[in-house]
Amino acid sequence: MKSQYAVIGLGRFGASISKELVQLGNEVLGIDKDEEAVDEMSSELTHTVVADATDEDVLKSLGIRNFDCAVVAIGDDIQSSILAAIVLKDLGVKKVVAKALSELHGKVLDKIGVDRVIYPERDMGIRVAHQLVSPNLLDYIEISKDYTIAELSVPKRICGLSIRELDPRAKYGCSVVAINKKTGVIIAPTATDVVNEKDIMVIIGTNDQIEEFENEVIG
Amino acid sequence: MKSQYAVIGLGRFGASISKELVQLGNEVLGIDKDEEAVDEMSSELTHTVVADATDEDVLKSLGIRNFDCAVVAIGDDIQSSILAAIVLKDLGVKKVVAKALSELHGKVLDKIGVDRVIYPERDMGIRVAHQLVSPNLLDYIEISKDYTIAELSVPKRICGLSIRELDPRAKYGCSVVAINKKTGVIIAPTATDVVNEKDIMVIIGTNDQIEEFENEVIG
Amino acid sequence: MKSQYAVIGLGRFGASISKELVQLGNEVLGIDKDEEAVDEMSSELTHTVVADATDEDVLKSLGIRNFDCAVVAIGDDIQSSILAAIVLKDLGVKKVVAKALSELHGKVLDKIGVDRVIYPERDMGIRVAHQLVSPNLLDYIEISKDYTIAELSVPKRICGLSIRELDPRAKYGCSVVAINKKTGVIIAPTATDVVNEKDIMVIIGTNDQIEEFENEVIG
Amino acid sequence: MKSQYAVIGLGRFGASISKELVQLGNEVLGIDKDEEAVDEMSSELTHTVVADATDEDVLKSLGIRNFDCAVVAIGDDIQSSILAAIVLKDLGVKKVVAKALSELHGKVLDKIGVDRVIYPERDMGIRVAHQLVSPNLLDYIEISKDYTIAELSVPKRICGLSIRELDPRAKYGCSVVAINKKTGVIIAPTATDVVNEKDIMVIIGTNDQIEEFENEVIG
Amino acid sequence: MKSQYAVIGLGRFGASISKELVQLGNEVLGIDKDEEAVDEMSSELTHTVVADATDEDVLKSLGIRNFDCAVVAIGDDIQSSILAAIVLKDLGVKKVVAKALSELHGKVLDKIGVDRVIYPERDMGIRVAHQLVSPNLLDYIEISKDYTIAELSVPKRICGLSIRELDPRAKYGCSVVAINKKTGVIIAPTATDVVNEKDIMVIIGTNDQIEEFENEVIG
Amino acid sequence: MKSQYAVIGLGRFGASISKELVQLGNEVLGIDKDEEAVDEMSSELTHTVVADATDEDVLKSLGIRNFDCAVVAIGDDIQSSILAAIVLKDLGVKKVVAKALSELHGKVLDKIGVDRVIYPERDMGIRVAHQLVSPNLLDYIEISKDYTIAELSVPKRICGLSIRELDPRAKYGCSVVAINKKTGVIIAPTATDVVNEKDIMVIIGTNDQIEEFENEVIG
Amino acid sequence: MKSQYAVIGLGRFGASISKELVQLGNEVLGIDKDEEAVDEMSSELTHTVVADATDEDVLKSLGIRNFDCAVVAIGDDIQSSILAAIVLKDLGVKKVVAKALSELHGKVLDKIGVDRVIYPERDMGIRVAHQLVSPNLLDYIEISKDYTIAELSVPKRICGLSIRELDPRAKYGCSVVAINKKTGVIIAPTATDVVNEKDIMVIIGTNDQIEEFENEVIG
Amino acid sequence: MKSQYAVIGLGRFGASISKELVQLGNEVLGIDKDEEAVDEMSSELTHTVVADATDEDVLKSLGIRNFDCAVVAIGDDIQSSILAAIVLKDLGVKKVVAKALSELHGKVLDKIGVDRVIYPERDMGIRVAHQLVSPNLLDYIEISKDYTIAELSVPKRICGLSIRELDPRAKYGCSVVAINKKTGVIIAPTATDVVNEKDIMVIIGTNDQIEEFENEVIG
Repeated sequence: MKSQYAVIGLGRFGASISKELVQLGNEVLGIDKDEEAVDEMSSELTHTVVADATDEDVLKSLGIRNFDCAVVAIGDDIQSSILAAIVLKDLGVKKVVAKALSELHGKVLDKIGVDRVIYPERDMGIRVAHQLVSPNLLDYIEISKDYTIAELSVPKRICGLSIRELDPRAKYGCSVVAINKKTGVIIAPTATDVVNEKDIMVIIGTNDQIEEFENEVIG
Repeated sequence: MKSQYAVIGLGRFGASISKELVQLGNEVLGIDKDEEAVDEMSSELTHTVVADATDEDVLKSLGIRNFDCAVVAIGDDIQSSILAAIVLKDLGVKKVVAKALSELHGKVLDKIGVDRVIYPERDMGIRVAHQLVSPNLLDYIEISKDYTIAELSVPKRICGLSIRELDPRAKYGCSVVAINKKTGVIIAPTATDVVNEKDIMVIIGTNDQIEEFENEVIG
Repeated sequence: MKSQYAVIGLGRFGASISKELVQLGNEVLGIDKDEEAVDEMSSELTHTVVADATDEDVLKSLGIRNFDCAVVAIGDDIQSSILAAIVLKDLGVKKVVAKALSELHGKVLDKIGVDRVIYPERDMGIRVAHQLVSPNLLDYIEISKDYTIAELSVPKRICGLSIRELDPRAKYGCSVVAINKKTGVIIAPTATDVVNEKDIMVIIGTNDQIEEFENEVIG
Repeated sequence: MKSQYAVIGLGRFGASISKELVQLGNEVLGIDKDEEAVDEMSSELTHTVVADATDEDVLKSLGIRNFDCAVVAIGDDIQSSILAAIVLKDLGVKKVVAKALSELHGKVLDKIGVDRVIYPERDMGIRVAHQLVSPNLLDYIEISKDYTIAELSVPKRICGLSIRELDPRAKYGCSVVAINKKTGVIIAPTATDVVNEKDIMVIIGTNDQIEEFENEVIG
Repeated sequence: MKSQYAVIGLGRFGASISKELVQLGNEVLGIDKDEEAVDEMSSELTHTVVADATDEDVLKSLGIRNFDCAVVAIGDDIQSSILAAIVLKDLGVKKVVAKALSELHGKVLDKIGVDRVIYPERDMGIRVAHQLVSPNLLDYIEISKDYTIAELSVPKRICGLSIRELDPRAKYGCSVVAINKKTGVIIAPTATDVVNEKDIMVIIGTNDQIEEFENEVIG
Repeated sequence: MKSQYAVIGLGRFGASISKELVQLGNEVLGIDKDEEAVDEMSSELTHTVVADATDEDVLKSLGIRNFDCAVVAIGDDIQSSILAAIVLKDLGVKKVVAKALSELHGKVLDKIGVDRVIYPERDMGIRVAHQLVSPNLLDYIEISKDYTIAELSVPKRICGLSIRELDPRAKYGCSVVAINKKTGVIIAPTATDVVNEKDIMVIIGTNDQIEEFENEVIG
Repeated sequence: MKSQYAVIGLGRFGASISKELVQLGNEVLGIDKDEEAVDEMSSELTHTVVADATDEDVLKSLGIRNFDCAVVAIGDDIQSSILAAIVLKDLGVKKVVAKALSELHGKVLDKIGVDRVIYPERDMGIRVAHQLVSPNLLDYIEISKDYTIAELSVPKRICGLSIRELDPRAKYGCSVVAINKKTGVIIAPTATDVVNEKDIMVIIGTNDQIEEFENEVIG
Repeated sequence: MKSQYAVIGLGRFGASISKELVQLGNEVLGIDKDEEAVDEMSSELTHTVVADATDEDVLKSLGIRNFDCAVVAIGDDIQSSILAAIVLKDLGVKKVVAKALSELHGKVLDKIGVDRVIYPERDMGIRVAHQLVSPNLLDYIEISKDYTIAELSVPKRICGLSIRELDPRAKYGCSVVAINKKTGVIIAPTATDVVNEKDIMVIIGTNDQIEEFENEVIG
């Protein structure tokens, strides 16, 4: 179902969110104080407007209160971020999501009732750090403190081996959830499925199991 | 094995990367022109130094050429980012990773030989957009253009149902890879495993299958 | 009993509060980012320090958590005001009072748990407006929406009249609470007490009664 | 009777004065160099104009000389404050009131003939300091150096006591001028009147008497 | 007799005054906020000091109250000029002279009690204009609204003529007060004194007489 | 005869020159880069124009080459002063006069052919210094290194004395050129002419003679 | 044949290139962000436009891809220089020439595929240094590391000498290629050709030969 | 013979001149107001000093008057360039060379007596334009308005041809002065000398002859 989003702040982060939201089939109103930033997005979003989002009258006149969700993605101005967030909550927007620039900023956003506080630079930093440390790690989900699903690219030296030959479950305790091959994705591969170069394996296991598997098999 | 990283630029993104790299057991040298930024990180990183990373002599004297990887995480200064990257490549650093602020910036970084160009705000924007659209979606990996692994929180109204009753494979085509319960993670749950509130299900399937499952079961 | 106050921001308002608190027998720690502002107050307050009050570590090291009350009197920087206030609340300061620059700012301060929000320019503006409109009105307290105590200077043309002759209770419904004469204050003056020039009358009544009294008697 | 006021400078203090003057039934012309400040007040004041109040021709053309009173409420620019004040006096405005930012500024305003110099931040600082020191003190008037009327909120532990039981006159020497109850204000309460929680007592006495009463009874 | 002068502001005008005062045998203390300006004058004046002349304590500590005269020659900062002047008057300096940048500024200086207000650029502009209009006019004194003493250079075509031949008193009504010749000054020249090239004549008369003489004889 | 002047730079000095030139019956074109400065003078000068006087094409199009004289009165911008002056000389303006801000600036102006270089602040500073040192000295002309004509106000204590009684020639060697009395100016006063309070004497003599006369008679 | 050039950046260097290219019969489009810079060149170039040359869409719309050559002559902004260069290469401009401000900048331009990198200030500095060291050296070409063609002005003291008398080949090993005389250029002069003052000799030889010839003959 | 040069302004142009002068065996004193610019050159020049070259006392104390030549290479500050040049001339430096930023600036430098005025950006722009138009033109000297010596790279398609086969004198009227081959430079090549790829020909002729030769033979 199509939802209505307002995105306040069309810097790199806000621009990316709003374009993706449109991509996913939603209506997006982009708001920024900076005319140039708005101009650049005007052809990509449903609506755009040059406005100061800390001015209650402006947001009211835009009908923000009827939106499903407002995202405060203001780049570097903590004051404007906080004031815009409290105006949005006051106006009764159903869901207000805001980007925090620091722990302290995040704490204020929490206290004034923001529904979800996000730390994009911090989270992305952590994600990139993991990928730097494990160069074959393409992506991962931390399921719990101990368990992870990891997406690993298959190195040359194990090409042509079958799951049975690799036998990750027996040797390392982790299982192969899927293999992404040029010919398509194999969900829950069987013992005779073979990995080739440029295939991508998705495995599940504890952090230690996956680390050992990575170091000895993928590394 | 412990590796040596240099992180140029200790803004929010660079600070997060370098802290996580230390957390993962590596040695990190943090470099920034701004003394205050360096001071804040000095107790968290292996080494920190106030320096202009576009000055070849400075980087040489820091022995950067012997580092395993250098991350150019410079915030908003495209010129410094490019000049620092080319100096690092010239000095022979094994792997240079750099943050791009725009497509054009990324293209220059590519041309001058940067090993990996990252777009943290763009990527994080996309990730947040997906989570906004599917409020129960906690995290996800896009395995291929068509297949996704999604981590979903279990809603109240399906609490107490077993995998057999939910039967996602028969009804939607997607399978449950794992369930994260308070009592621990169940890998490859069986038909009799039951989901409860606050459990988290990890499912795999095509984008359409997962979307349908989400809309009708998780909703 | 001597209490310990911290005053953050030593502009005109903060300086005045802190000097008066010392005057009233309390210990006051004055904090400002600006060295010059601190220097000017250093001889008048118990302690002064040049510090950034949005830095939790700094406030901790000053032992702020043991103070009886912290006043955030930051002049024009809404962001610093909010961040200083949340740090003070987080550190467990018993009572946090903060100056608001606008309604929106005040709303945020309320939400993050500030114990008392003050609007000095707004309140002082109202007070001055009343005095402009009634030139003989020296000061006043609004007891309720309807009742006021007003301090009025006695005009020449009623000099020598006794309370009986003026008879404000019978004519206007308001009573004389006190008369401040050069020779001392008469509390609850009797019918024979006489007002002279430069005396000050304190009367109580409804706003209408006082206005009428003022217009016809004091005028 | 309706008077005509000009308020120069529509910052927080000037805005508050001018709104209250309108509230009290007067005509107010608001003047500021800053267009935005003027726009914000244009719907609340009788007239507003963007103008430089240090330019004699401008003020003349606005007919300022016929106003009853001009208030120079310029925020932070001592030079403009002084020049506007002397122009207003030169034009023959009946009464010129001006805000001073410092003792020295106030002295200059005095010398050039300003009718009343006000120090809002200093005065408000003193007022707030008194309220901080006596948390139940809501407002007060200093009648003389020794005598004060104080408005105090009634604490829980004396609820239900009558004036006779409290007997402030006998015990502390101060008298109860009025009690503000939810049901209305009792002027000059009798011995049998009872105070309840959230009532507000107005008492009169010497500073020492009131302090003792506060410490022992209200505390 | 040697007098003590303080000159506040060592710009071009203040520097020139203070150097000339020293030249004329007086003691001069030069004061400026700008270190560089002070350094440049330090070898030419009796004393120099880097100080803010609007700070009463600073001026007191310099013992300004005992100076015979203080000159406020502050370049472009009206506020500092006014505040310095009032501080000097407050401290009891016998004579305070101040440079005004505009009529309004001059009016304020007058009101706060400055003993003499000077307008150097205005006065110099008038003087230069006169010299431009009469190219042989070297200098002049306006004795009254009608009478002027003018110093005129002798043009080639009247060289060799005697005062009798020129006869300015008979022909134009003005008299020759003096002739400055290479060989010395002739006071009250006689009819037989002759003017030569490069001589300078000093004549006295009404403005019209001098203008006519200039046009017809000197022209 | 009416001449045409162009004045470049309408600051305090340029404004004063150009107004006086108009006063003296000339046509003046005022030029400044700053619109506000031009607006203020537009009603007082023959023509005014907002223009960059260092742009040869602009000056050409204004027909500057036909003016009798151009005055470069640019305030604080040495570069513009020099460039404007050379353009004016290049265009063939008959006479170019320019204000110098320093000796070095003056030397450049000389070298590039400026017809007369003036130092208004320096010259005015010298003039004011003389008047400070001799408080009764109203104005003066230095005829030669040794001789001066001085305009002195008559002090109370010599009122009623005749020239014979004062006898400045016999006692001090200097002569009285004129006395300016309320009733008119007496040129070459006789021995029986009497000076009264508020009269102004014009005397001529050597510097020493005048100083002695001043100290002993006027003092 | 007429070619089409685009010159990005119309500072002193870019302006000179583009005017000369027009002079040599080519079409030139001049581009600069600064309106004033564009205005000054608009009458001299085929086309001019105010535009940001780092914006791909702008350059596309100008049809840059069809130009024969684009010169990036941006003055001081390394970032814009790099981004403009990569956009031009991306658009497929046949030849991209760019000015480098430093070695590092030049290295980046090389890496992103710029066809020719020029260092005008460095090259001009070298050329001027040579001319300073040899004051009669008017111009020169370094043919190889060892050989130079030098253009030398003939000094007074060898005037009237023939090539035979000078005999540079025999005495110094270098030959006279041409003599530029008022009457025309003599190519390959014969032994009887005579040099006169103000003639210019063009000689060829090794650096040492020419230096010796210069020192002993021209010197 | 070793000469002493002072170079004022160590930007790109000044740095290049001074390094080349040292290279050519001279002593160079580098002067700049900017400490960083001086630091970068300190190891390459004989002496360097941070100083303001418009301050006569500073230049005197550096003994500039004894230098053989001073180069004013100040980047963008016309005023400092002019003032430094006049100070150098005043101090009696034998030869003063200065860089001009514009025709007007150059005209002023000429008038104040600078011995040689250079326009590096303009001259380099012209040089580059010629090379762009003739891509095989490496360098050139304009001997007279009509005659040029050009250094041309030999294109593939004439490789192996002898001078006789090319016969430029007969066909185009121009002669080959030299050929720079990998094996060395051939001065005045004979008819049997052969050109190969990467050889460079130096030819002399009229502009038309060379253009024709270039278009038909080299082109």
